[in-house]
Amino acid sequence: MTENTRPATPSVVVVSGNPRAGSRTVTAAEAAASRVAELLGTADVATIELAAFAGEILTAAHPAADAAKERLARATVAVVATPVYKASYTGLLKAFLDLYGPDGLAGVVVVPLVVSGNPAHALAGEAHLRPVLVELGAVVPTRTLTLTEAQLPELGEALNPWFARWATPLRRAAGVPVPSATTTTPSTTPSTAELTGAAL
Amino acid sequence: MTENTRPATPSVVVVSGNPRAGSRTVTAAEAAASRVAELLGTADVATIELAAFAGEILTAAHPAADAAKERLARATVAVVATPVYKASYTGLLKAFLDLYGPDGLAGVVVVPLVVSGNPAHALAGEAHLRPVLVELGAVVPTRTLTLTEAQLPELGEALNPWFARWATPLRRAAGVPVPSATTTTPSTTPSTAELTGAAL
Amino acid sequence: MTENTRPATPSVVVVSGNPRAGSRTVTAAEAAASRVAELLGTADVATIELAAFAGEILTAAHPAADAAKERLARATVAVVATPVYKASYTGLLKAFLDLYGPDGLAGVVVVPLVVSGNPAHALAGEAHLRPVLVELGAVVPTRTLTLTEAQLPELGEALNPWFARWATPLRRAAGVPVPSATTTTPSTTPSTAELTGAAL
Amino acid sequence: MTENTRPATPSVVVVSGNPRAGSRTVTAAEAAASRVAELLGTADVATIELAAFAGEILTAAHPAADAAKERLARATVAVVATPVYKASYTGLLKAFLDLYGPDGLAGVVVVPLVVSGNPAHALAGEAHLRPVLVELGAVVPTRTLTLTEAQLPELGEALNPWFARWATPLRRAAGVPVPSATTTTPSTTPSTAELTGAAL
Repeated sequence: MTENTRPATPSVVVVSGNPRAGSRTVTAAEAAASRVAELLGTADVATIELAAFAGEILTAAHPAADAAKERLARATVAVVATPVYKASYTGLLKAFLDLYGPDGLAGVVVVPLVVSGNPAHALAGEAHLRPVLVELGAVVPTRTLTLTEAQLPELGEALNPWFARWATPLRRAAGVPVPSATTTTPSTTPSTAELTGAAL
Repeated sequence: MTENTRPATPSVVVVSGNPRAGSRTVTAAEAAASRVAELLGTADVATIELAAFAGEILTAAHPAADAAKERLARATVAVVATPVYKASYTGLLKAFLDLYGPDGLAGVVVVPLVVSGNPAHALAGEAHLRPVLVELGAVVPTRTLTLTEAQLPELGEALNPWFARWATPLRRAAGVPVPSATTTTPSTTPSTAELTGAAL
Repeated sequence: MTENTRPATPSVVVVSGNPRAGSRTVTAAEAAASRVAELLGTADVATIELAAFAGEILTAAHPAADAAKERLARATVAVVATPVYKASYTGLLKAFLDLYGPDGLAGVVVVPLVVSGNPAHALAGEAHLRPVLVELGAVVPTRTLTLTEAQLPELGEALNPWFARWATPLRRAAGVPVPSATTTTPSTTPSTAELTGAAL
Repeated sequence: MTENTRPATPSVVVVSGNPRAGSRTVTAAEAAASRVAELLGTADVATIELAAFAGEILTAAHPAADAAKERLARATVAVVATPVYKASYTGLLKAFLDLYGPDGLAGVVVVPLVVSGNPAHALAGEAHLRPVLVELGAVVPTRTLTLTEAQLPELGEALNPWFARWATPLRRAAGVPVPSATTTTPSTTPSTAELTGAAL
């Protein structure tokens, strides 16, 4: 990514590695991405569902995957989402990420998002997904956003504590101004405004 | 896998997760599998190259993958091999393993084999591949067999120390008799016979 | 460990890495060890609570730790137990294991046991504890035995499914005869006898 | 950490988890910290060698460790350094970090630094150390700084590529202004000035 090709307006891209289209993984990821876009003051949000072109990823020619690859590499912030399969990310997501060369996600701030049917698999994001993103050169300043199936019906509530905690590191990593009250002191006790989402 | 379907003669199956057919990954895995077969006293060795049917794995119907899946689940010992992609196993391998249900590899003894161009990625087998195999219910009694690119031209030499160290745990896990000299005392200093492969 | 120093009778050793003596970690580990001893047909079971000599481990002289170290290295099967601290094993346990040289646990079959207050930390055993044990040369044929705090009051019930699933791989790894019904066919559906513990 | 207690001037703190005082781990970490301090425009750099009070960490009272704990939690950026012991961080480092309560490093930007005698252990930082730091609430925007023993004699050269790559994410995470040329476009091909350290 050179200076000329990265757009001036911040953009947010969702990538869902769920093999089923229209999954709750993508719903959750889009809700998170919409909160990230508010933080960044942008309306440029796009979704890439790998399920839409899964069949071509492991073949010799994969034009839709190539386009998605470029789109993701140009994002300011990406929400890379996966359900937990066999205690890790899906093979679909990894097969897509394998298409990148070294440092293919350099300069992209990534929020790993893991949707887990089994609460016991909550560490999958930190133990397995994050190292792949870091290997690709992404900046991963926050903790993985892990959501259990039980939390999905009340997504807003589930996202609040994570955003209260990580909004400032995320804004900083994306290079957007941080509201002065929190500039020098990321607090662990979020203000009421942050919790209700008013400040986002 | 029920008692009726698991065959009486031990079998060894190689699975290569390298997206290229005829890769050095499969050569190394077959060399390791041949040593495992000697340990088990069997000539029943088969190779599954995921590259041969990669294009169907992420589609709705995947008959060749289904056949491979069953073949692997019936193995006494499997050598599950992958090159290192993005500091982990390949997406191709994970996409194939994702086809299994819970405990889909129960009763199979698995030797993880990782071929790494970069010596810095040697922990990928223990950190990432083994947990997936264990989640599938496989018995993984040995350390990952990690081979760097530099070792591939002299495969026999590269395999000797690993087999000297892990032959007894492997035989035991597979339920085959262990030569009496080593029955109760797996030694860390392999005998000359073991090192030259004469005892294998 | 040479052939001369490893005793003929199988022995089971519990190591608890909980910094508090008399913790529920050690209670759970001793219950598991007692089940392992039944499997091995031995009454030789010992417990090492690192809490008893924690103060000396990070100092220059640590005679009690040295004695514990030797005792553990001579075990046939060890239950290495830890609560989850910061999403991983305790520093106390790691500081003790750091006292070993390379392959210091070669020839020891280890069952990792993790007690977790938060179900979200269940992967800590596979992701973090097992790689350390494997690096030390231990044979780790089973899945980590993970117990959540909620399961501790009914330990027997909590242990049953794990032992039904892993009794045969464990017996084999320890080199003790496996009852003929299960010799060649580790089944994933445990018999009633196994579930009630009658066969253990 | 509240707004009132976190100092206005950025500070850099080195923590070395090497059990030996005066180790090459601390030398390497101090060299890295000095580069970080230049990036932040500060001269406030302090070193905490856990070896200096290792003996008290696993005992009931540990005043020196408590003071170190507070000092680290107030840092703007911390370089948390460890040699590789048993394919992971040292027990000493983990025992110290275990003293923190939940989110004890919230608001601290941490650079994990791993010194490895064996290049094969380079993933230890990403696989094991980083998850502990993230669990403690630290912001870890960069890749782990991994140094092999062979690189230690020429530390400056060894640090250059890492700083060329991660200077901007690090400055942003720390909330200090980023030079305008790199504000919106972290490039993967560092300028000559960055490589020679002139711009740092």
